[in-house]
Amino acid sequence: MSEVLITRARVIDLRFPTSRESIGSDAVNKDPDYSAAYCVLETNAGFEGHGLTFTLGRGTDLVVGALEFLSTLAVGRTLSSITENFGAFARLLTDENQFRWLGPEKGVIQLAAAALLNALWDLYGRVEKKPVWQLLGDMEPEQILSAIDFRYIDDALPRDWARELLEESRRGYAERLDLLDRDGFPAYTTSAGWFGFSDEKIQRLCREGLADGWTHFKLKVGGNPADDLRRGRLMREAIGPDNFLMVDANQKWGVEEAIARTRELAELKPWWMEEPTSPDDILGHARIRRESGVRIATGEHCHNRIMFKQLFQAGAIDVCQIDSCRVASVNENLAIILMAAKFGVPVCPHAGGVGLCEYVQHLSAFDFLRVGQTMKDRVIEYVGHLHEHFLYPVRIRQGRYLLPHDHGYSIEIFQESLDRFAFPDGQFWKEDREQK
Amino acid sequence: MSEVLITRARVIDLRFPTSRESIGSDAVNKDPDYSAAYCVLETNAGFEGHGLTFTLGRGTDLVVGALEFLSTLAVGRTLSSITENFGAFARLLTDENQFRWLGPEKGVIQLAAAALLNALWDLYGRVEKKPVWQLLGDMEPEQILSAIDFRYIDDALPRDWARELLEESRRGYAERLDLLDRDGFPAYTTSAGWFGFSDEKIQRLCREGLADGWTHFKLKVGGNPADDLRRGRLMREAIGPDNFLMVDANQKWGVEEAIARTRELAELKPWWMEEPTSPDDILGHARIRRESGVRIATGEHCHNRIMFKQLFQAGAIDVCQIDSCRVASVNENLAIILMAAKFGVPVCPHAGGVGLCEYVQHLSAFDFLRVGQTMKDRVIEYVGHLHEHFLYPVRIRQGRYLLPHDHGYSIEIFQESLDRFAFPDGQFWKEDREQK
Repeated sequence: MSEVLITRARVIDLRFPTSRESIGSDAVNKDPDYSAAYCVLETNAGFEGHGLTFTLGRGTDLVVGALEFLSTLAVGRTLSSITENFGAFARLLTDENQFRWLGPEKGVIQLAAAALLNALWDLYGRVEKKPVWQLLGDMEPEQILSAIDFRYIDDALPRDWARELLEESRRGYAERLDLLDRDGFPAYTTSAGWFGFSDEKIQRLCREGLADGWTHFKLKVGGNPADDLRRGRLMREAIGPDNFLMVDANQKWGVEEAIARTRELAELKPWWMEEPTSPDDILGHARIRRESGVRIATGEHCHNRIMFKQLFQAGAIDVCQIDSCRVASVNENLAIILMAAKFGVPVCPHAGGVGLCEYVQHLSAFDFLRVGQTMKDRVIEYVGHLHEHFLYPVRIRQGRYLLPHDHGYSIEIFQESLDRFAFPDGQFWKEDREQK
Repeated sequence: MSEVLITRARVIDLRFPTSRESIGSDAVNKDPDYSAAYCVLETNAGFEGHGLTFTLGRGTDLVVGALEFLSTLAVGRTLSSITENFGAFARLLTDENQFRWLGPEKGVIQLAAAALLNALWDLYGRVEKKPVWQLLGDMEPEQILSAIDFRYIDDALPRDWARELLEESRRGYAERLDLLDRDGFPAYTTSAGWFGFSDEKIQRLCREGLADGWTHFKLKVGGNPADDLRRGRLMREAIGPDNFLMVDANQKWGVEEAIARTRELAELKPWWMEEPTSPDDILGHARIRRESGVRIATGEHCHNRIMFKQLFQAGAIDVCQIDSCRVASVNENLAIILMAAKFGVPVCPHAGGVGLCEYVQHLSAFDFLRVGQTMKDRVIEYVGHLHEHFLYPVRIRQGRYLLPHDHGYSIEIFQESLDRFAFPDGQFWKEDREQK
């Protein structure tokens, strides 16, 4: 493996015109064009590493620019020189002397670090001939820990505690793997409840979802109170009292309003209220949780492990929604998954977008196999679009993710799709401009 | 005023080669090239608005890209259409449907929003023929409040409370203004204690500082413990027991280490310990404050009002270090200054860099005139370089900022400097490449 040299990085600004169908619409994100800053690492050994970070259209060029710079820190290095102290390499990216000022560890530069590190994990899996969940699942505790930057979290996640957990969780590994391989990992669908969908469409999609075996459904709220309640009642009626309904306000409210609105929506018996307020408001989430009595979920906009640490410390959340691109890739998510276990909070990844489903199935499988060791109260988000562009798309059966067995991180997009939706010069966008 | 139409925005990537002299060096930022994304708003009325955001070199191009996009939201509008509901315009920038995903309200896009809004405040001041502090000082309470986006902070800053304070503070305004105009605003110097400076240089600069009337000196720490203590003792010895010494770790430590190191440095009798840990770690700062007994300062990397709100709510800081470019300009700083008053925390702005001194003097003057109404425990940071590039540089006398009287926000840089240090094609950088 030592001879795998990273020789070149290609970076692509990829944009899909999803806003035209209200796909992905919510109370805050009205017209997203699901997009990605996409990176291909070429090597001297016939392997490629593919990685992306998810964006909503405008501004993807900024992430592409950041990714082009950060990727220069990987090109010319051997893969093993990176992976043998992966945490140190991750810090090289997040702590780059001049770039750091633009964060640190947040926003555009953090999204770009995620894309590059995601590509390295993909490459690592391919070289080792394992899917990423298995690459992690097979690792020695110390190897897993060496991928993590413990800076700023050692007050909440003692390294010794983490090592013991990772050691102890070898027991029962084979049984859990059998179970996971047979039944898959529980999921929920967001595809039925987008903000821009009509009442009729929501009802129809719920019926279709039930027929396909779904048991957990998410509804976008944050409109006017009467509309939210009407749509919520429709969904509750359509799925019945025994299935799970989650509501998601996408950061729409201030703290006081969030408390009032969450209390109102409690009649729907939501399994959780997601993103009731600003993703930065740790103490606000804690208060909403205390004063509404509803389980609180957040994380897709939580920009690093330090923020997650505080969500746990403050008792602010019941559900930890990790994201594969918002924080710095697998490395940082390992830290967050371990902290979630330390604080007893279940991890239910955010997905959807472009490739997020493909990514997070690996993280939940690892969590089940080596950290949390249970599927209780765990579900992975599922959104049913854009998967056709992936060589190794997720497979869903009866509302569950089936364990992927292809090597790497499941993220490679067909060259044809990359060519067609590259922005601004891909064929789709060229034709789009000509038609205007 | 209604006829001032913004016709065009010019954006410049400006970089000064400060890293070659260890200027600006600290425990984390080893080799900053003080830089800026700089914006000129042209109008149909002979006025220009100049604004910048401060960066450290690499990555300035990303902020320039974001600024180029955001400035399209101002071009074609009249100034009054923006200023008559300035808070709504600020939210238009921070909440742009697709851009928002890259933050929200943090990192590259937040820095870019700061630059554009700073340019608009400069233009507003010039059109009204007032320095920005006076523009704000003369405003009706409701006009000031309309510049603020109260979303996510109304649980901590009731609008009515703020209105009453701004109404009440008209009393004594003339007396405070006389005092400010006569004596200036207290300042402290960071120029004597950079991380890369030798012991001898620190001592010499302290002696020179004392001779120039300085009474507050800051030392960069975060090196090895013995070095920090040695340098601290040298500085304490040089300035004597009655002057003020502050220490600044620039985010170097985890929480546990920060507590231990702050306790060690307590022998220096520091007036404050600045940035002991990650700027995102609100609860960590609260713990360091409780367990070290030393006054805690932070804010220059605090990315928005929601984070400041929690620093106040958690009792995490004794000193609120607002920054004119990290958050979204005057608009967001008005919210932070008002919250600081609500929670009884003095505002001591971060400055230095490029143009930060020029900016924050306006914010502290406004704080004194209309919000905090006292200079007790307030000092503005001062760093003595790059001022020669400004048309209206700060004026310092006996360790105090003298009140500026030029119209606008004091930020315009000489065209010659813009041309010479534009990156990568300015004359300086061209010659630099040729010499390599």
